[in-house]
Amino acid sequence: MKGRTIAVIGGSSAGPAAAAKAKRVNPAAEVTLFEASETVSYGICEAPYAISGLIADESKLVSYTPERLREEKNIAVRTGHYVEKIIPSKKHLVVKDLRGGTSFEHAYTHLVVATGSSPRTLGLPGEKSRNVFHLASREDTVAIMRYCSEASPSSAVIIGGGYIGMEMCEALLRKGLDVTLLHRHSLPMAGLEQETRETVVQELESHGVHFVTNVLVESLYEERGSVRHIATNRGSFEADIVILSLGVAPNVRLARAAKIRMGPTGAIGTDERQQTSADGIYAAGDCSEVRNMITGKPMYLPLATLASRAGWVAGENAAGGREVFKGAIRAMAVKIFDREFAQVGLSSAEARSAGFSVVTDTITAYAKVGIMPGSGKTTIISLYDKSSGKILGANVFGGEGSVLRANTLGVAIQHGLTADAISRLDLIYAPPFAPLWDPILVSANQARKKLK
Amino acid sequence: MKGRTIAVIGGSSAGPAAAAKAKRVNPAAEVTLFEASETVSYGICEAPYAISGLIADESKLVSYTPERLREEKNIAVRTGHYVEKIIPSKKHLVVKDLRGGTSFEHAYTHLVVATGSSPRTLGLPGEKSRNVFHLASREDTVAIMRYCSEASPSSAVIIGGGYIGMEMCEALLRKGLDVTLLHRHSLPMAGLEQETRETVVQELESHGVHFVTNVLVESLYEERGSVRHIATNRGSFEADIVILSLGVAPNVRLARAAKIRMGPTGAIGTDERQQTSADGIYAAGDCSEVRNMITGKPMYLPLATLASRAGWVAGENAAGGREVFKGAIRAMAVKIFDREFAQVGLSSAEARSAGFSVVTDTITAYAKVGIMPGSGKTTIISLYDKSSGKILGANVFGGEGSVLRANTLGVAIQHGLTADAISRLDLIYAPPFAPLWDPILVSANQARKKLK
Repeated sequence: MKGRTIAVIGGSSAGPAAAAKAKRVNPAAEVTLFEASETVSYGICEAPYAISGLIADESKLVSYTPERLREEKNIAVRTGHYVEKIIPSKKHLVVKDLRGGTSFEHAYTHLVVATGSSPRTLGLPGEKSRNVFHLASREDTVAIMRYCSEASPSSAVIIGGGYIGMEMCEALLRKGLDVTLLHRHSLPMAGLEQETRETVVQELESHGVHFVTNVLVESLYEERGSVRHIATNRGSFEADIVILSLGVAPNVRLARAAKIRMGPTGAIGTDERQQTSADGIYAAGDCSEVRNMITGKPMYLPLATLASRAGWVAGENAAGGREVFKGAIRAMAVKIFDREFAQVGLSSAEARSAGFSVVTDTITAYAKVGIMPGSGKTTIISLYDKSSGKILGANVFGGEGSVLRANTLGVAIQHGLTADAISRLDLIYAPPFAPLWDPILVSANQARKKLK
Repeated sequence: MKGRTIAVIGGSSAGPAAAAKAKRVNPAAEVTLFEASETVSYGICEAPYAISGLIADESKLVSYTPERLREEKNIAVRTGHYVEKIIPSKKHLVVKDLRGGTSFEHAYTHLVVATGSSPRTLGLPGEKSRNVFHLASREDTVAIMRYCSEASPSSAVIIGGGYIGMEMCEALLRKGLDVTLLHRHSLPMAGLEQETRETVVQELESHGVHFVTNVLVESLYEERGSVRHIATNRGSFEADIVILSLGVAPNVRLARAAKIRMGPTGAIGTDERQQTSADGIYAAGDCSEVRNMITGKPMYLPLATLASRAGWVAGENAAGGREVFKGAIRAMAVKIFDREFAQVGLSSAEARSAGFSVVTDTITAYAKVGIMPGSGKTTIISLYDKSSGKILGANVFGGEGSVLRANTLGVAIQHGLTADAISRLDLIYAPPFAPLWDPILVSANQARKKLK
């Protein structure tokens, strides 16, 4: 284990996790982390709440500064350094110092590729205008906040109805903007079930978001450096600020050029030790695939929790340890105004395409004792495998407690519980928290009958 | 299955559950339910919230009237009927009509004993005074509410620091009374861990409850039908209203007289089909034991959820079905003013006395992303079996989301997950609901290291 020289490319989530873990497992190793920007370890998931003003101090989103990573974790952090090439045969990187402008070689014995993802673009002129933003980095967050405070926009167009689109609708509406959401399909939040997605639309519209469906953006009209008109197949929209939330794509150029194998999703393929096809090279985070624990197949799921977990495993193994990342089920949630929305496990479309015969069950029940003040309802859409009776996935949405109930179902999914086993779970009944029959039990009881 | 004549004794939770299930499974069966009072299916767990006024209409606590049970479920409900004797050899009951005063014989082919529990008493003169109350029935609830509105008490003494004692502290304080809680031990809530119990005390005291420890009540001084002074080893206390919350004992007199076998806890023993030692006689609810799924041993746990589950199973089997109740882990929660408290699984004392070598781990972590507004902390005290690494029990307490997290750990307990498996759970991260590392993961990660 001695004499290891570990290089990590990328300072977002997986990179710092890998570097810190490598150093912890093998303190004798030299660990260098390269990051092209000036920021590492940034909580981009909190950015909508900084933009809305709910989190008053944006700088709190930085969980580690480069200095702290250096001092507390003993990692040689090189921000402003862009890795141009990985040369596996020579075991070195070609790195460009963006401040000095010079390039140099950096030798490694083991490498962790954590190059992350980039926001998808429309591919139209005007996307670089000063009032058009993505939300994928600290630079983006700060730029949106600065633009809002300097230009005082009164209307926003958000293009793309995924998780970030939802959060930005709420954030900008909270700031008093008139918000229009343009989405390419008839319903937002593609991974959720039909009824969940319809409820998302209700929630958006009841709070005043103009939700426009089946939109194909044709052009962004720029005037003096700003986009004011957006031409689409559904007419023209005007906006003082434009947010693009079109999802992300893995940053794989560097790995591809080094002949590292991509997986079926187009992201870097790894084994459960996060090892790539190249000897001594590991990958983790948004640039790489994650194993779906339900199907056993790789999926592309760029989430911060999974990036950190995979980063830990990559770092430990790069440092000489033996750790595995068994994968994920997908566990996601978003608050949209007054409602909670969560998804755990497979969607019905995913389950069917994975070859399962899917039984879907939907219930709506009180999340607390119904006669208690402020008691709201929760809807559970659960998906079961007809042949084994096991739960494959669920959407849980509604009032308070929906998201944390999704986690309980997530454990059931991860450990292969059947509807019968879920219906026998001993769950808490207490008027301020849960009714005599928790919605989870109501759901499983009904599903059990369908599965007979 | 035809020709069954099923009698059910008791109309609280298990009785109506058994009767309804029996009729559903075997519509040809004659099902008669005997209840001494005039109320069936009463939500006694909600009573503190009706007394406090949070639930405005107490009558909503009745989930089924006798009429609805008759009409909707086709059960012959006989309220005001007291069962005096079970005669197993003749397969009949001796029943007294409390209105008419006459007794009669009622033949059965199958019987469900659901005689419930009775509140424990101090065994002192004065307990029947008009301002001294238990909280175990609709009659109790209505009497407390009536007394509060008619006599406008300004001070209360609550004797006994269990779940109901806690809820009554909050209920009466909410009504503006000065509340003193007298407890026989140094800490309330005997089944919880030391730190949890200390936090309960803090929560009570910070809201103005006078919590008096190690109290032995010596006498209740009655004046003109009311108790005004309570003499104890810790001095004398004055009160306009006295609430006794000393726990409950199973009602087993009837079963005992019929030579039905009691279990080691003193409640009626049953197998997992809820069958007692007497042929064709089932028992369910607060009069009977429940199997602890962790130890495999019987326990006494008089909870409404378990009463209903056991009632269903007893009813189904009495009607000719084959159903089992696999038992419970214990899943309980209480809100005490601004904090949530939950217990799942074994306590450390129970675990040790069951022969486990217990590793205890305590963490306190943010329940949402820490920098989000209103983010509170949750403490998880988790108990693991040193040899297997499996989780045996947990206390979860603190801010919002503590109780629902306990359910997630409850599933882990029920399905024998180790600290390592819990640390690998794929849980939701979303700023309004949960931090990057959910407290459950923080807890399991730390425990895993201790268990190595």
